[in-house]
Amino acid sequence: MTPKEAYDTLISEVVKVSLLLSVRGLLTWDQRTYMPKKAARFRGMQYSVLAEYAHDFITSDRFRSLLERAEEGDWERNSREGMNLFWLRREYDHQMKLPKELQLRIVKLATEMEVLWREAKRDDDPSKVLPLLKEMVSLKREVAERLGYENEPYDALLDGYEPGLKATEVEEVFSYIKTETVKLLRKVMEARERGKVPNRELFAGRYPVARQREFNLFLLREIGYDLDAGRLDETTHPFAVRITPNDVRITTRYKEEDLPDGIFSTLHEMGHALYGMGLPEEWFGEPVGNAASLSVHESQSRFWENVVGRSPEFWERFYPYLRAFFPNLYGAPMEEFVFLINDIRPSFIRIEADELTYNLHIILRFELERAMINGQLDVSDLPEAWNEKFKEMFGMEPPSHREGFLQDIHWYSGSFGYFPTYTLGNVMAAQIRAKMSDEIDLQRAVREGEFARILGWLRSKIHRHGALYLSKDLINLATGEPPKAKYLMDYLARKVERFYG
Amino acid sequence: MTPKEAYDTLISEVVKVSLLLSVRGLLTWDQRTYMPKKAARFRGMQYSVLAEYAHDFITSDRFRSLLERAEEGDWERNSREGMNLFWLRREYDHQMKLPKELQLRIVKLATEMEVLWREAKRDDDPSKVLPLLKEMVSLKREVAERLGYENEPYDALLDGYEPGLKATEVEEVFSYIKTETVKLLRKVMEARERGKVPNRELFAGRYPVARQREFNLFLLREIGYDLDAGRLDETTHPFAVRITPNDVRITTRYKEEDLPDGIFSTLHEMGHALYGMGLPEEWFGEPVGNAASLSVHESQSRFWENVVGRSPEFWERFYPYLRAFFPNLYGAPMEEFVFLINDIRPSFIRIEADELTYNLHIILRFELERAMINGQLDVSDLPEAWNEKFKEMFGMEPPSHREGFLQDIHWYSGSFGYFPTYTLGNVMAAQIRAKMSDEIDLQRAVREGEFARILGWLRSKIHRHGALYLSKDLINLATGEPPKAKYLMDYLARKVERFYG
Repeated sequence: MTPKEAYDTLISEVVKVSLLLSVRGLLTWDQRTYMPKKAARFRGMQYSVLAEYAHDFITSDRFRSLLERAEEGDWERNSREGMNLFWLRREYDHQMKLPKELQLRIVKLATEMEVLWREAKRDDDPSKVLPLLKEMVSLKREVAERLGYENEPYDALLDGYEPGLKATEVEEVFSYIKTETVKLLRKVMEARERGKVPNRELFAGRYPVARQREFNLFLLREIGYDLDAGRLDETTHPFAVRITPNDVRITTRYKEEDLPDGIFSTLHEMGHALYGMGLPEEWFGEPVGNAASLSVHESQSRFWENVVGRSPEFWERFYPYLRAFFPNLYGAPMEEFVFLINDIRPSFIRIEADELTYNLHIILRFELERAMINGQLDVSDLPEAWNEKFKEMFGMEPPSHREGFLQDIHWYSGSFGYFPTYTLGNVMAAQIRAKMSDEIDLQRAVREGEFARILGWLRSKIHRHGALYLSKDLINLATGEPPKAKYLMDYLARKVERFYG
Repeated sequence: MTPKEAYDTLISEVVKVSLLLSVRGLLTWDQRTYMPKKAARFRGMQYSVLAEYAHDFITSDRFRSLLERAEEGDWERNSREGMNLFWLRREYDHQMKLPKELQLRIVKLATEMEVLWREAKRDDDPSKVLPLLKEMVSLKREVAERLGYENEPYDALLDGYEPGLKATEVEEVFSYIKTETVKLLRKVMEARERGKVPNRELFAGRYPVARQREFNLFLLREIGYDLDAGRLDETTHPFAVRITPNDVRITTRYKEEDLPDGIFSTLHEMGHALYGMGLPEEWFGEPVGNAASLSVHESQSRFWENVVGRSPEFWERFYPYLRAFFPNLYGAPMEEFVFLINDIRPSFIRIEADELTYNLHIILRFELERAMINGQLDVSDLPEAWNEKFKEMFGMEPPSHREGFLQDIHWYSGSFGYFPTYTLGNVMAAQIRAKMSDEIDLQRAVREGEFARILGWLRSKIHRHGALYLSKDLINLATGEPPKAKYLMDYLARKVERFYG
């Protein structure tokens, strides 16, 4: 068998397994939307059996020998073949380095810990979950040791979410963001003290859910999300899922008393979905047909949610429609609405944070999880470490652990190294915005509803490449530079100037 | 390896594959309810890959050798082990006797023919579909030859839907039903001529779909369909699907101007679903954990739809609620409603037929498909043969082929041998009713809403046995007799007497 033949055989089997695994997307979507609750146990078994098929396949001798033979070919690194082999080798090594029992122990511990975390959060009682968290950190360190790393254990975990990225690189980007953000935040706080705050009273009232649903669907259609290749449903925690290339669904949530919440949830998930729809269909099932990384995924959701969705131009276009759907807004000027959705004020909860302070929340988590994994912070000291650091960064102390280190599910479901991708997504979104602006008059395009031009740019520069490049290289290719936080801070500085200057 | 060990290994692998295949239920449900339309092509590929996994498994050497070794054990025929091996052997032989290409040709032809059938029906033009139907009949004859049969080719196909059943047995049952039905129908027609007809005018009007939805959910809850282990959604063609033991969903349809249509669709599918929910959960994934046969399935849907749902007692209980939901019924006496839903009048369309003439529609199809498969009727003569036979049985000729041989999808999707199971289901439902009445005062139980007693009887006598017995044996076990058409005809005779006597 020639390397080419081995490659072709390998890929055709990989595509078959991917197609099989693609049904997981539907299982998940169904579970979170319409599944009857008693179906949960067998649903869990359906996931397990799919995982077993995938695991058996990738750890088989056949897989290994096809992979090894294919790798003997003379492939260019960023060719379709070269990158497919890169991703498959990565996945194979990953599976082989981590014993099945270790993987199962982590899954089991995460399942138990999620339950205890909910209780700990409800009762504001760290002692309920800290022992298990300590165990999880130690298992994750074992994972890091087994996977291997150059500089520090944390890198091995970070790599799982953002291939190739090192903690020192993150640190550099984040320390710049931190300094600049603190400066900007000071400016904002001074302005707020001078009374520069949006008039929230103007927007108090009820916005019927049925109407919100219609308005959100209207926005999706206007922007170009294809409802014949997707859906909009409702869940407590909004999400996007790509089942197959022409079936990329999103969910959102509606609060009767909070109109922007639903809109920005929808725009965020729509950003993820547009990326999913733009990935090359003919590569479906091959590793290169996937998204490049979590950061790149997040850059797409933040681009539509924040860069486009919170811009004054977006509402110059859509505020008249919003008023048509919700006549109670007739007393509220557009400018007040735009200020409201761009208002900056420190808060304890990450998912309620504004665009500026959001990154501080992430930096805090990055520093803490890095210290825990690298063994510089003992898990039992986490609660105090959190509160101290929070005070240092935000100038206020969380009134409870519920609003402190217990707020996010990530660590309690075993995710370490995930948080940084959120802020890296913001970094990339701002950089994409800057680069796109060289070619498209972005403000004008948004004001005139030429979303096809914007989406077209993203498709040709980002989406269509799938996972043909690591995220850093992809951003370099798309914007001429690797990810730089400068664009994000410039963008935020202009925002602060516009609303609080 | 002992036979016992081979059996245990075989079953654990079978259960794993069944669990994998169980996701097909969700794929189908989703496809017919909420799937975005552009997802169709990849959805088709998802089905194919699942079918391929199943096919590879069952035709593997490993499967065969485990099966053969297990069969050397000393199992009782109707033990869990004995019947599991019976069904697996049957499936194995079936797969081995039919070359993959033949199976694929049939699937492909069916897919093409369905499209042409829709056109032929729309244009009332037999020539559009007859050539393909001829080809399908010849492929189905090839299937019959390969599968083998004792008496006639049709038996081999019938066996696919109703294991062990012979066409001569069906013929015997059907000829009795035919004779008795024609007699009863004459009586009805005479009464109708004397003006014995329900007053349809009383029910003209609009019944808002949202209200119908609520009423149907109310009925489901009252009867005991567990909405935490199922759902009710809406599709053009109602169906029931068992995804896993605690996830058995149904759909129905609502017509704003036809209130009974939705109700009886719901009750019918609920009957199927209650059977699915009653199958032994601990046998899930094993062949014995399935339904016994299509006829038995249909007996359960017809039992709830007709025996219970069309009974006067059911409406003694629920008509007051129906009136509460739809106040326009205040001018219509309950007795008129009960007459309306039990009205007997010959019609051209099977799915619109009443309980009595329905079986004539089936007998007609049985006779024609049997003749085609056995080579006694050329496909090109089907249109005239249909019309002739219809006139002979119903005393009127279809005004179009659309209302004639083109009305049902079955043949055009390659299903031959399926139709008889509908009437056999009616036969069983009436027999179950008769036997149950020996133990439960059925009229009183329905009137008083003691559906748990009725469902309990069905669960203990039918559902919990799964596929541990062939349908004939199961009915024998549950009622003390193999299926006999006498009970159906007695039941229908009483019905005719009550409404037209």
